[in-house]
Order: sequence, then C-alpha cells, then structure tokens
Amino acid sequence: MSEVYAARRARLREQCTTAGNAAAVVSRAANVRYLTGAAPHGAVLLLGPRADLLLCSGPPSGEAGEGRPDEALRVQVLPTAAGDTAVAAADLAAGQGADSLAVEEHHLTVVRHRALRSVAPRLRLGDLGCAVEQLRLVKDSEEISCLRIAAEIADQALGELLESILVGRTERHLALELERRLVDHGADGPAFATSVGTGINSGRGGHRPTDRRVEEGDFLSVCLGACYRGYRSEIGRTFVIGTTPADWQIELYDLVFAAQRAGREALVPGAEYREVDRAARSVLDAAGYGDALPPATGHGVGLEIDEDPQLAPGAMGKLDACVPVTVEPGVHLPGRGGVRIDDTLVVRPEADGGPELLTITTKELLAL
Amino acid sequence: MSEVYAARRARLREQCTTAGNAAAVVSRAANVRYLTGAAPHGAVLLLGPRADLLLCSGPPSGEAGEGRPDEALRVQVLPTAAGDTAVAAADLAAGQGADSLAVEEHHLTVVRHRALRSVAPRLRLGDLGCAVEQLRLVKDSEEISCLRIAAEIADQALGELLESILVGRTERHLALELERRLVDHGADGPAFATSVGTGINSGRGGHRPTDRRVEEGDFLSVCLGACYRGYRSEIGRTFVIGTTPADWQIELYDLVFAAQRAGREALVPGAEYREVDRAARSVLDAAGYGDALPPATGHGVGLEIDEDPQLAPGAMGKLDACVPVTVEPGVHLPGRGGVRIDDTLVVRPEADGGPELLTITTKELLAL
Repeated sequence: MSEVYAARRARLREQCTTAGNAAAVVSRAANVRYLTGAAPHGAVLLLGPRADLLLCSGPPSGEAGEGRPDEALRVQVLPTAAGDTAVAAADLAAGQGADSLAVEEHHLTVVRHRALRSVAPRLRLGDLGCAVEQLRLVKDSEEISCLRIAAEIADQALGELLESILVGRTERHLALELERRLVDHGADGPAFATSVGTGINSGRGGHRPTDRRVEEGDFLSVCLGACYRGYRSEIGRTFVIGTTPADWQIELYDLVFAAQRAGREALVPGAEYREVDRAARSVLDAAGYGDALPPATGHGVGLEIDEDPQLAPGAMGKLDACVPVTVEPGVHLPGRGGVRIDDTLVVRPEADGGPELLTITTKELLAL
Repeated sequence: MSEVYAARRARLREQCTTAGNAAAVVSRAANVRYLTGAAPHGAVLLLGPRADLLLCSGPPSGEAGEGRPDEALRVQVLPTAAGDTAVAAADLAAGQGADSLAVEEHHLTVVRHRALRSVAPRLRLGDLGCAVEQLRLVKDSEEISCLRIAAEIADQALGELLESILVGRTERHLALELERRLVDHGADGPAFATSVGTGINSGRGGHRPTDRRVEEGDFLSVCLGACYRGYRSEIGRTFVIGTTPADWQIELYDLVFAAQRAGREALVPGAEYREVDRAARSVLDAAGYGDALPPATGHGVGLEIDEDPQLAPGAMGKLDACVPVTVEPGVHLPGRGGVRIDDTLVVRPEADGGPELLTITTKELLAL
C-alpha cells in the first residue's frame, strides 16, 4: 500500500508546485488518512520542500479504526508541551527553507491560522482549498473493495435484525443492536449514528432513535452503515410491521421506490450531479411531495460518510466512473410516517454493466 | 428554564458590550446549547443589537439528545439554499445596524470567517474568545443535577457488567454492552466512546476496544460515561480477573489508588489546577512512573466530556466551588498492562463536606 500513498502525495505535491506553493499542510482528518494511511487524533501531514512528515500529538495507536501510517513515511510525535501540530508543521516548513505554504482554509480555524502566521511570519500562506477532497472523488480498486466489505457487513447486520421479533422494541434498542451486529461482522464501528424510526418517525432523514416502540401497522425505517478500514457504507430500508400494509403505505412505498430506481438508473459516467438528483426528485415532485424533500437525494461516500459529490439541484459537476454514491430519496408525512430507500452504488460505464449496487438487501416492501 | 438561558445570554451580552462589540455570533455547538438549551446541527446564536436569534439550517428535532430551544428565544430555520448560518447571522446583524460583531475565532474556519467578512464588509469583526467556555466553568444546581444523574447511570451500567461473566468476552463486546446499558438506564447516549482494555491493553488512557478476549489473571480497565440532557459523566475502574491478583498487580493498583486519592483530596476551592495535578502526579513520579504519564490527570466535564479546566502541569488558574472535574491518574506498563482509576467530582468547600463524589462505584480492587 505504501506506493499508493506515495503516489497520492506526489499528485498533490505536483498541484501545489503548479500553484506556486513550496509546501503544504493537510489537517483535515480524512484527507490526512487518504494521503498517509492513518489519521491519529490531531495529526497533520506536512508535504515539505524536502520530505513528507506525519506530525502527531501522541503516538499512533496502530488500531484498526485509526489506520496504520504508510511505513515509508516519517512519523514525528510531538512532545506534549509542543502544542499544535499544524503550527509545528509551519515552523518545520520555514526551517526547511520554504517561502510559501498551502493550508486547508476550510478546515483550519482563524486562531490556528493566526498561530501559523506568527510562528513563521516570512512564510506566505496560501489556500490548498479542497484539492485533497477532489483527489478522493474517484476511488481505486482497493478503496472500492473496502466499500464492498463495508456494505456487505451492513447487509448482514440488517438481515439478522429482520429475522428477530420487532414489535414492542424501542427505536433506540434496535439501533444499538444493529451497531453491535456491525461490530460482530467485522466493522471498525458504525459508519454514522444508526437511525431507526417507527410509526410517525419513519421516513425522516437522519432521525435520531427515541424510546418509541414498534407497533403493528407501523412503517419502520432503518438507516445504517459500517466503517471498514476507514471506508463507510450506507443502506436504508423501510418495512411495514404486521401482515398487510395499508393502501397508503403501498402507494407511498411504490412511489419512493420508483424515485430511487430513477436515481439509480441515472448513475452513468458523465451524468451531471443535478441530473441524477432531478431523476429521483421529479418522481416525488410530480406526486405533490416536492416541497417537503431534503436538499439532496444522495451524496458521495468513502473515508467520510457524506463527502463530494452532492446529488442536489444546485450541485455543479459530472459523475466519473468509480465514484461511489448513495441514492436515498424519501418522503415523510408529518404525523403519519414515511418511506426512505437508500443504497450505496459505484458509478460504472454501461459496458461494464452499469452502476454496481453494493447494498444488496431486497427493496421489496417486506411485511415483518 | 427559560430565565436561566436568558440570564446566561445577558451576562455574555454585557461582556460583549464592555468589549465594544454591538453583537456576537456563537457557533461552537456546546456554547450554543449552553445559551439556548439546544444545539441543532450547524445552528448558531446571534446576540443581536435588537434581539437574540437561534439560526438553524434545518428544523430542530426536539429530541432529548439535541435539547429543546428556550421557548422565549426566536428560532429561525434558514431555507436550504441560504447556506451558512454564521454568515446569515452576520448579514442580519449588519441589517440591524450593528457596526461590530464578535465571533468565536477558535471555532470558525478561515473560509467561514472570510464569508462573514464579505457578506457584511462594514462590520468590524472581533474575537469573542473563550468567553462562553469561561461562563460554563462553574455549574448551577440544575447542571449539577444532570451530572449526578449522568454519573448514576454510568454506575448502574458498570455495576451490572460486573455481575456478568467476563472471561472469554472481547473488549469490543463489553464496550457495546456497556453502551446499551447506559441507554437502558435513560442516557441520551454514551458521553464518549466507551473504553475497555484487558491484559496488555489495560490501563491505557483512551484505549479503543479490540477483539482481545478477557483472560484469567488479566487486569481489566473500563472507562465509560453517560450523556444526560447534554451533560456528560466519566468513570474509570480497573479490576482483576480470577481469584487472586498477582503481587505486581496489587502494588500497582495501590499506587494508582493512592495517586487518585491525593488528587481527589486536593480538590478544594482556590486550589491551583496544577496543584491538583501535582498531588496525583507526584505519587506516581516518586514511584518511578513520571516519564510515561499522560499530559493531564483530570479535566472539567459538562456539556463536553473534556472541557476547561485542565488539571495539568502547565495549566493556569484556580478551582472554584461547583466546578465538576475528573481525577483520573493511570499507569500503563507496555507489554504488561496497567491501572486507571477515574472519578467525576464536584468541587465543594470544606464546610460543605469537601468534594462531592458523583461516581460512587467502589474503588477496592475487585477480583471478578
């Protein structure tokens, strides 16, 4: 793997040099991990004029959740009293003779930025912008393998839950049980806070589990994901509790299913982000639910659960092959409940069979 | 509760006015919650020249974990396309005729700060610094009640675990079970990632649970806490697995226990932060473990699990009554394991009986 990280750093360094920056400090955790294999708490990567260096405020733990740093990379653990890693990196860059340093202005706070400026007043500070986030968009086969495993783990956890008795259990307990099962199946941990919504809470995006119990006749919406070697999957399904769904439930489910399918089918290399969003959104819009929809119907996944691209009306850009995204339209009717269906897929050319579905749990309306 | 939040905002406003700022934007989540009762994701508080306003990027969920906003406070939900809440707040402040605005420079990123500047170019931007964090240091009786309940929940979860069979179970499973029990007993969720370390992993601060199984003869260190109405407790204990602890285990345990007791006994109003640290640290130092100690032996708790004050050698300041802190010295011997003992206490005057211990699980060395 060492060459992979070195190659990523070489690409970034090239961009920096082109932009006229002699060195760069990467501070955003997911970006540090992408470029080094690990992101110990508070660590930054210095792409120095002479050598690259991972600066940590404590010894890397070496545990699965944190990743292991690229063995070819120098790692320096700062003594406790040395303070901020980004400031130490700026100091080192200046000491190595750099005259300019690009930093992640969308991540550094005003106070940290000022501390950098004061420790190395002759260093011209530039903005690295979202250069690393851009590099992270298209995933290599190793990354996609991790995402596949992360999706498989979430499918397994969800599948086991469906075999258990659900009526009478609270949203919170179901969420905790799902998270335990994710870990059972080898996840580093949940990819994000597991959401379980039943009855009037069903279909709400990002719903935080409450003490409401599952009842006969409820819709039950579940959204979970696994984190595997840092890579995060996402799956969302809605079920109905009891033997026969009501007519309104079947209608709403079919509608959201149609919207989600339209979104999935729009995932082709070259499609504009907002076209994919529009494909899903227009189905719900035509049925009169346009006003209550969330701002995006999908987003990228990788080292973060919600990364670029955004599949949203105002998003600019086009999909590439090997970009993993979610497609997750939903409708929530206040006071009644709703439906969300959410998959993680990888964009692939038609010739390769079209989008690769990573989360394969059935999307039939199951009555549990 | 509404008056409490209004009084906190009035104190902050007074400080702002004194510093010459007509308005302020509070963006750090725990600070927003302290001043308004709730911290929906991305929300900011505008202390405006005319009125206060909680600006949210989506509707507050109203769930326990997020808190409920003060009913006397105006809440404004921005339309999706409106973007950043802090920028919107700056725009509003300028529109209300403010000429200056204090912001949390230790929280705002360089990019957000620049966006504020560009939306309201005539507004002089000042630094609010850690004014709200300072207000949060001394807790009122309502806050201490929440901390008491948060501590009680953690005690209960830990007590139940001790009654179960531990040998053969993994660190990860024990951690997940503890988190489930926290929720069972009414926590909003864990106060932080539960740490369970057994054998060679015992006694490591912030150890992330692995697949290592508990074995006869192991030290087992557990650190957990509950979040209750936003307030976070912390308790850490070390046990020995099997019938008879080894001599080195008894010696190490007694030493850490003595250090922790010295730290607890140093908790009096007016004591310097670093004196409390020194009380605990010097015991371990005298036994030859000084070099391997963590940078702090305790810290404040409240709406965040690790807030001011730091009980550390370089910390400046003195304890006040009604400041809740942890006292948590530990020694980890690489390749062997170690001991940590961690309590949450509230500083009280001698006349009131001295420090109030919130986490009451026994600190005897239990053989399980």
